[in-house]
Amino acid sequence: MWPNTSFIDLIGIKFPIIQAPMAGASGADMVVATCEAGGLGSLPCAMLEVEKFQAEFHVIRQRTNSPVNLNFFCHAPAGLDPDRETAWKNHLAPYYTEYGLDTATPTPRISRVPFDENMCAVVEKLQPEVVSFHFGLPARVLLDRVKSAGCIVICSATTVEEAQWLEYRGCDAIIAQGAEAGGHRGMFLTDEVSSQVGTMALVPQVVDAVQVPVIAAGGIADGRGIAAAFALGAAAVQIGTAYLFTPEATITPLHRAALTAAHDDGTALTNLFSGRPARSLLNRVMREIGLISDKTPAFPTAGGVLAPLKAKAEAAGKDDFSSLWSGQAARLGREMGAFVLTQTLASDASERLTAIAARD
Amino acid sequence: MWPNTSFIDLIGIKFPIIQAPMAGASGADMVVATCEAGGLGSLPCAMLEVEKFQAEFHVIRQRTNSPVNLNFFCHAPAGLDPDRETAWKNHLAPYYTEYGLDTATPTPRISRVPFDENMCAVVEKLQPEVVSFHFGLPARVLLDRVKSAGCIVICSATTVEEAQWLEYRGCDAIIAQGAEAGGHRGMFLTDEVSSQVGTMALVPQVVDAVQVPVIAAGGIADGRGIAAAFALGAAAVQIGTAYLFTPEATITPLHRAALTAAHDDGTALTNLFSGRPARSLLNRVMREIGLISDKTPAFPTAGGVLAPLKAKAEAAGKDDFSSLWSGQAARLGREMGAFVLTQTLASDASERLTAIAARD
Repeated sequence: MWPNTSFIDLIGIKFPIIQAPMAGASGADMVVATCEAGGLGSLPCAMLEVEKFQAEFHVIRQRTNSPVNLNFFCHAPAGLDPDRETAWKNHLAPYYTEYGLDTATPTPRISRVPFDENMCAVVEKLQPEVVSFHFGLPARVLLDRVKSAGCIVICSATTVEEAQWLEYRGCDAIIAQGAEAGGHRGMFLTDEVSSQVGTMALVPQVVDAVQVPVIAAGGIADGRGIAAAFALGAAAVQIGTAYLFTPEATITPLHRAALTAAHDDGTALTNLFSGRPARSLLNRVMREIGLISDKTPAFPTAGGVLAPLKAKAEAAGKDDFSSLWSGQAARLGREMGAFVLTQTLASDASERLTAIAARD
Repeated sequence: MWPNTSFIDLIGIKFPIIQAPMAGASGADMVVATCEAGGLGSLPCAMLEVEKFQAEFHVIRQRTNSPVNLNFFCHAPAGLDPDRETAWKNHLAPYYTEYGLDTATPTPRISRVPFDENMCAVVEKLQPEVVSFHFGLPARVLLDRVKSAGCIVICSATTVEEAQWLEYRGCDAIIAQGAEAGGHRGMFLTDEVSSQVGTMALVPQVVDAVQVPVIAAGGIADGRGIAAAFALGAAAVQIGTAYLFTPEATITPLHRAALTAAHDDGTALTNLFSGRPARSLLNRVMREIGLISDKTPAFPTAGGVLAPLKAKAEAAGKDDFSSLWSGQAARLGREMGAFVLTQTLASDASERLTAIAARD
């Protein structure tokens, strides 16, 4: 049924569709619905305590026997830099004043722990069928343990060089994350946002450069995009933004409203919210402070200074300081459950692949 | 043979492939080869005097009876701004010193005339089958005359809003120019580079928003990209960078060498060379001065200050100050003549469309 079955054969799933792990925006419900529909559901573990993702996994396992993906971050965690944080807070001080906040109040800590010994031990115990990484791979010894546990390992690449690096280190499949994608860029061998590559150009170049199956991501939100990904040589797609329109998405009403009103050119890459470049719908802080600042504290700590502003603004019904993760194809999103969405994406893609061969 | 024939039927050509007009990089030879192969050849007229493009058209017409596209710019021409130019020259003064150039020497004038009364009169006389515009459309009265002369009118859009604007004003087909594309962004309702949309996301959103045929551009350089464009709903593609690898391309050996060595992430959008954002392979001036400067003189005059540096550096075998226009898929380029390239692109696309339906 699919023109390239290397990925679905590798994983043992029906549809070549990965529901993207979206930390803070998706949980067990979305994973289960996607898996039961025939796709690969992904649980984002980067913002969860070990006990929490273990519990979530058990919930998922009770509700589906299909393969599941656990996703982790592999960033080098930055230590606290109080001087930098203070300078950043001073930079944003006018907003603190506007909202009656005291800059002397201690900055909330934002924690995103990279894949470590503890998480690895739990993965070995849970033995999920798939483990995916973002921001590169964990240390060799941890990676070997994940693979020895029988997990298929996949990871995001934003350039051909990153894809080759991942294949050389044993990744079983590679996500070619085009610049259209929402949320954090998976970049780990470069920090140059301006030269990030669009999906249409990236996918075939990665396909030419590696032997393992390539998963296309970025700007894909309907059957047309999935068919296009296969035309480019991909063996699967990873879709995020389209799943934010499902009731399973654990996003704020403000984020949901912004997505519903999104335009094609309404997003940009910014490092304001976390310290790393990520694609968000444009909002006030992005427009006023600038998209990429050299003053933000390092990932993942940057969000701490914005957190009190975000809380105050959201309470007032404003998304001025919220990270509104979205890819460039939000406009193609449709409100439906994750189960129906997964099946609709698959059937639309199948129809599209047939239609473009029909030569009407 | 093609899944969507609306564009080839409209123009009366065999293959849904437009050779992109590339001012300074292509002329009659490339047009003729493309047209004779079954595609639509495009003569870039923006940097040519009226007499010159008229003469070129006559050369083309003697060598092919197939439809031909004449391409023009529709920018609002900036007047000279001596203060701004002097400030820019002072900004680049260290390079002048390095090359033993005197900043007091008058700056060369760079002329790119927008579509005007004179050009329109020649178009009415020549009656090319297609006229394409970049940077928006000419004044209503001129556009009406072009259409009354029987020319099919097409124009680039970089956003859905621009596409709708063009359709409302009577464009017969619209080029959805994704962010991967090389050379000048056709943007005319926005100047926000950071929110420009990738081809994968842009094409289906434009297809949904307009009734006229959509031509996909940006990151498409082989049969896979063409097949993907059709999957997204396009009725044709416009391809530039791949044609720079043909002997018909009138580019410098330095530019050709840089293209041959290109990597997927080796380009960026910059306004340094002309005053408007355009995608170029990264070189010294882009790395050192920054990609987008608010100090450049307005389009099209900005190149004047760089011109003496470019001449000196190129004479020394360096591309440090040269505009090295390229899209993000240069790596997919193959050295072959424009005739063979056009036919190869068409047959590869056809094979690809068949292969992805084959469900092996």
